[in-house]
Amino acid sequence: MHPTKSTRTQVAIIGAGPAGLFLSHLLHRQGIESVILESRSREEIEGTIRAGVLEQWVVDLMNGMGLGDRMMREGHFHSGITLRFDRQSHHIDMAELTGGKRVTVYAQHEVIRDLVSARLEDGGTILFGVSDVQFADLDGKAPRVQFRRGPDGPVDELRCDFIAGCDGFHGPSRQAIPAAARTEYQIVYPFGWLGILTEAPPSHPELIYANHERGFALLSTRSPEVQRLYIQVDPKDDIANWSDDRIWSELHRRLEDESGWTLKEGPIFQKGIIAMRSFVCDPMQHGRLFIAGDAAHIVPPTGAKGLNLAVADVLVLSRAMAAYYKSGTTEGLEGYSATCLRRIWKAERFSWYMTTMLHRNEKESPFEQRVHLAELDYLVHSRAAMTALAENYVGLPME
Amino acid sequence: MHPTKSTRTQVAIIGAGPAGLFLSHLLHRQGIESVILESRSREEIEGTIRAGVLEQWVVDLMNGMGLGDRMMREGHFHSGITLRFDRQSHHIDMAELTGGKRVTVYAQHEVIRDLVSARLEDGGTILFGVSDVQFADLDGKAPRVQFRRGPDGPVDELRCDFIAGCDGFHGPSRQAIPAAARTEYQIVYPFGWLGILTEAPPSHPELIYANHERGFALLSTRSPEVQRLYIQVDPKDDIANWSDDRIWSELHRRLEDESGWTLKEGPIFQKGIIAMRSFVCDPMQHGRLFIAGDAAHIVPPTGAKGLNLAVADVLVLSRAMAAYYKSGTTEGLEGYSATCLRRIWKAERFSWYMTTMLHRNEKESPFEQRVHLAELDYLVHSRAAMTALAENYVGLPME
Repeated sequence: MHPTKSTRTQVAIIGAGPAGLFLSHLLHRQGIESVILESRSREEIEGTIRAGVLEQWVVDLMNGMGLGDRMMREGHFHSGITLRFDRQSHHIDMAELTGGKRVTVYAQHEVIRDLVSARLEDGGTILFGVSDVQFADLDGKAPRVQFRRGPDGPVDELRCDFIAGCDGFHGPSRQAIPAAARTEYQIVYPFGWLGILTEAPPSHPELIYANHERGFALLSTRSPEVQRLYIQVDPKDDIANWSDDRIWSELHRRLEDESGWTLKEGPIFQKGIIAMRSFVCDPMQHGRLFIAGDAAHIVPPTGAKGLNLAVADVLVLSRAMAAYYKSGTTEGLEGYSATCLRRIWKAERFSWYMTTMLHRNEKESPFEQRVHLAELDYLVHSRAAMTALAENYVGLPME
Repeated sequence: MHPTKSTRTQVAIIGAGPAGLFLSHLLHRQGIESVILESRSREEIEGTIRAGVLEQWVVDLMNGMGLGDRMMREGHFHSGITLRFDRQSHHIDMAELTGGKRVTVYAQHEVIRDLVSARLEDGGTILFGVSDVQFADLDGKAPRVQFRRGPDGPVDELRCDFIAGCDGFHGPSRQAIPAAARTEYQIVYPFGWLGILTEAPPSHPELIYANHERGFALLSTRSPEVQRLYIQVDPKDDIANWSDDRIWSELHRRLEDESGWTLKEGPIFQKGIIAMRSFVCDPMQHGRLFIAGDAAHIVPPTGAKGLNLAVADVLVLSRAMAAYYKSGTTEGLEGYSATCLRRIWKAERFSWYMTTMLHRNEKESPFEQRVHLAELDYLVHSRAAMTALAENYVGLPME
């Protein structure tokens, strides 16, 4: 590609998801310039409905950055979760177990809306709808990103000091690390989640995680009018096989307990099936390219860690870049991958633990399946084990 | 078989291992008669060297029964363990984490010696060297055990109210539960332990559990003069392949850390390779037959739970039998299996967790292998997670 236009910034950020947007904000606050390149339109990234559970430190960070006003007004603050199995309900009081920490349920697309508008108000540059993103000179001190404005637009070039690959699991950034220079760790689970959005009143104020012999189910609340529910299904199943009646019937069976609690129904206005994966790329950097968020790692949604890990990555990266620009030190940049991976592996462990404990997996031996039920029985009767779950759920301390 | 002699007792106990011996003592204290049938000789059961780590409540129970004098003199009281990985050592102070609970290292054959001699002094009956044990009329109210005194002796019959199958994993009791009436859960691990006994001074006052890239290693102390050490090996490996030099070399590599700590060598006077298995039989009863200890369940030795679970089973059983003889109630007997299995599955979970976390298992995916290292990294930095480990290690409360 031959660029028709060449501009320069300090940090080229690929992707306007949570990782890219947080990074742009964090760099801006350190006086570091960045440009975000995003393949989708603003409408698309703001309109793609995705769940979001924010750890306490992420909420504190957003508030500290002045980005938390709408979240504090519209988010839901959950101080516990309910685990349901053997038709019994067990409340895990996370706030009580962790010295007052909570999680905040605030959808990811709402976070994105807030960060996009604030960044544009700050004078930040986000180029939407770019295509054909390619990297050059990653190994030198002046890497470049080439891309087209729009699907058939002219080729532009962005010269920069660093490239931050925040372009998700399917983006080009991770692939730009030579295959021989990275190791990819992965589990593809033999089950997926069928998720629905329904216009119904809340059935329960907090999340309910249910391990049922027919499979996992999750109840969560989006707003007083909209609820999000999930059931474990075959990831290769076709959503066309799932009538609304069949979905409700399965939700009732998996979620009901002995207390007489009932699930409130409403019209289903969105439904779909997602696959579940655990994935880690090591290292997360190559020359002047640093990858962050889903580009580097995927967690199954059971632990509600995805967005939080993305923010943790770019917080580490922004600090390393700030130190570099302030004093020329490269220690933080060189340690980026190792620093992030330590937290990432702990979150991967927690997400894997929650996923294996709560789902029914016919590929496991009957012994392992029983062990997960024993884990639940132990967990809900041990303050120490509940505290361990809670401290991971609300987020391990960010160093 | 046609018995030449028929006698009667209340409870026929098959096996003079920890389960059978504890049961006989517990029943005697309730005024309930029993006879123990053991296929091996007294010398054999007292001379088979086996490690023993006793949970706090088992120590308290032995002392309460007046059986703890020698244990309190000769046992070793450990208030912590060391976890070693990445060449770093991390002390888990179990006593501090559990409000003062410790484990007692007192070899299983020493427990057996104490229980045999005390039972015989009490006037108890233990028949050693019996063979051809067979059961009859398990479904009725008057079950019978037939057996030979010695390998070619005459056939004796023991009529009883109940049979307690405490005859280990390979004994006939579990097989007497019809296959269609029981479910067996099992994991056979793709690794085993090569264990040695060495005449050497202690290298460390407490147990060291090491996760090393070459495989697991465990250091434990038996006495000021004798130490027991283990390394993970292929369970199909031949001990003849392991010269003393090779064993010491492997122990040094796996156990060394950055502190300059050194392993003290000595002559190896016993070595062997054991396979590792997790196993649970459900239910643990059939008619008037109740199975306990290794006859019903096996744990890998990593969690040090085997002997403790056996004692827990027979404590539940002795209480149920005492209630039956006192007031005729069968509720405890009917609930025996369910009551025991709840504790057993928690111990199976803990033993499986310790085993999978600490061993290198090439049959696992690279992702799972990394998850275990993340578990260790999380564990040693979380008071909650260390407390969960500690409370299981010293023993969950016995109800």
